[in-house]
Amino acid sequence: MSTDSFPTLPPAARVGDPLERIDTPALVLDLDAFERNLDLMQAKARAAGVALRPHAKAHKTPQVALAQIARGAVGICCQKVSEALPFLEAGVTDIHISNEVVGAAKLALLAQAARVGRFSVCVDDAGQVAELAAACAAQGSRVDVFVEINVGQDRCGVAGAPEVLSILQVISAHPQQLAFKGLQAYQGRVQHIRSREERRAAALAASARTAAVVAALQAAGIACPVVTGGGSGSVEFELAGGIYNEVQPGSSAFMDADYGANEYGDALRFEHSLFVLASVMSRVDERQAIVDAGLKSMSAESGLPRVWGRQGVEYAVISDEHGNLRGGAPLPQLGERVLLVPGHCDPTFNLHDELVCLRGGVVEAIWPVAARGLSR
Amino acid sequence: MSTDSFPTLPPAARVGDPLERIDTPALVLDLDAFERNLDLMQAKARAAGVALRPHAKAHKTPQVALAQIARGAVGICCQKVSEALPFLEAGVTDIHISNEVVGAAKLALLAQAARVGRFSVCVDDAGQVAELAAACAAQGSRVDVFVEINVGQDRCGVAGAPEVLSILQVISAHPQQLAFKGLQAYQGRVQHIRSREERRAAALAASARTAAVVAALQAAGIACPVVTGGGSGSVEFELAGGIYNEVQPGSSAFMDADYGANEYGDALRFEHSLFVLASVMSRVDERQAIVDAGLKSMSAESGLPRVWGRQGVEYAVISDEHGNLRGGAPLPQLGERVLLVPGHCDPTFNLHDELVCLRGGVVEAIWPVAARGLSR
Repeated sequence: MSTDSFPTLPPAARVGDPLERIDTPALVLDLDAFERNLDLMQAKARAAGVALRPHAKAHKTPQVALAQIARGAVGICCQKVSEALPFLEAGVTDIHISNEVVGAAKLALLAQAARVGRFSVCVDDAGQVAELAAACAAQGSRVDVFVEINVGQDRCGVAGAPEVLSILQVISAHPQQLAFKGLQAYQGRVQHIRSREERRAAALAASARTAAVVAALQAAGIACPVVTGGGSGSVEFELAGGIYNEVQPGSSAFMDADYGANEYGDALRFEHSLFVLASVMSRVDERQAIVDAGLKSMSAESGLPRVWGRQGVEYAVISDEHGNLRGGAPLPQLGERVLLVPGHCDPTFNLHDELVCLRGGVVEAIWPVAARGLSR
Repeated sequence: MSTDSFPTLPPAARVGDPLERIDTPALVLDLDAFERNLDLMQAKARAAGVALRPHAKAHKTPQVALAQIARGAVGICCQKVSEALPFLEAGVTDIHISNEVVGAAKLALLAQAARVGRFSVCVDDAGQVAELAAACAAQGSRVDVFVEINVGQDRCGVAGAPEVLSILQVISAHPQQLAFKGLQAYQGRVQHIRSREERRAAALAASARTAAVVAALQAAGIACPVVTGGGSGSVEFELAGGIYNEVQPGSSAFMDADYGANEYGDALRFEHSLFVLASVMSRVDERQAIVDAGLKSMSAESGLPRVWGRQGVEYAVISDEHGNLRGGAPLPQLGERVLLVPGHCDPTFNLHDELVCLRGGVVEAIWPVAARGLSR
């Protein structure tokens, strides 16, 4: 209709902006709380003599991983090979793919990446191991291998020591390409048990299943250099248990409303550092304020977001681009900013291209969520 | 560790690839079913003498909008100004922002976009209208304005005719910048009522509230050129009702498991055209097959995905990167491809950068989901 040039979307925030000037919805990080979370997790792992390999599936943001490694993390976990690539390029050189990788295209990419960094991967099938070895042979690279065992998640992972031994035979047939590194034992369902005592019992049950497999391997003369696993809800028990010598917490750097609903002890309690910043876009109905952040800015399958710093106000209804805030307390006015604690941080990060980092309410940095959308 | 060059992620699919060669997870479109859906929707709107303005929030993909406009759609709806920009750049010149736009930055962008294309926007607050007029004055542009009325969604939108008349006074004070175009009346909750009769009753109730406002405006001497609204679950009733002269269905082009669970009549029944292609990545447990597509590939807040073309197999558990398929029927083998009907198409599109378009099981095109992530 016009010869005017197409408008370009301005940046959501610039370094030095106060919170009130950030365009919404935006994913924001409170750097002070975030750094306290990193320091606490690293100190606890160091005190326990356990290696910390935080999971990057939670945040998909290379700057987060570099901040963890600077504090002493031995490397990171990724869940997909494609997800690992931006981290590798950012200088993270020790990456564990904490998941099974199946199919020629994905294995070729892994073998190629293993020429640049040190990579390990999980397996639970002998045929998959043979294909992995072939991919490494084609690339002239070598990959460390963890056999995943099922310790109660009932998802991936073999049942016990006999199956591990059978897979080890295939691994040992390819000494130029593959090295057995140990066991992965992760129990995801444990993480979200609300009662600390019940969570401890479930974590100890998973650890006991892991210990039994390690013992059976030792009896068969197989050493298991690394036992890796654990998550943000159970890590205090894995650090204390003596079974795991590497832990993989991801969400502890951020916390979310789901993890926040767990009961914790005083020893290992993390702070909310991650928020979705929203604006009130409609105040027609006196009983509610409508904000501009819904399902396209936060995942809701693990529960609705919590409204931060406004006691008595709740996020009551979520739709694709809207949220209905309600409550007895005074509601924010039209145009006012609101901070929301997302229900589940991992899929929420995966909706955003940028993480706006604040210190004292002012933008200090903008970090690219470089692995956003990389699920292959 | 090495001077090897960083691996780059190869494309997930290339034109001419068979389905089996597409890397997973991938968002795929069955072009034949999609085109039948577009043709059916356009034919029904034409027969009813109602303008079709499909919602682009569902798909965020300019090629989809262009295919709809080529069949007779008068333009599109977007939910955010940022979302509209890739459509504008792709040649879609008539865009209705079916939502309130609040704040100087967003209004400036809208006013700027209105110099290139024809834009309309919803309002429900007099102050918002004055700011919109100021933004248009600063850009030398003009925007059509719809007053949104609440017809049962209880989200945005004013209560009735007196509030519309009060906002109209502000609109009419800025004749160079703003033109009153009509009413928007959308009832989102109606869309997902399973029973067709109950859905019809709820849709007619929303239409009756709309008709009452139109009549009150007419009695006050105000003509209402356009009444816009409706969604894929209710559009058959809005087309027949004589109240709406423009409808906004988005999901009808794709359908999803949630819309698929509705009961429909024979007159307006759409096909599933949108799928997430996944691969089986673990088959350790005989009772289940684990696929590589979870919450980062499909939203689940409206229900789990359905497994397509495999009777008796269900997607039983979803986690961030995994899905557990279970059932009495034979389960797919390790590495095998599976098509999944996502629970909710709108937030699912928003997770993907590309839509892989298939005809007869072969890739015909790859369309960028260009407005993915644009929620400002």
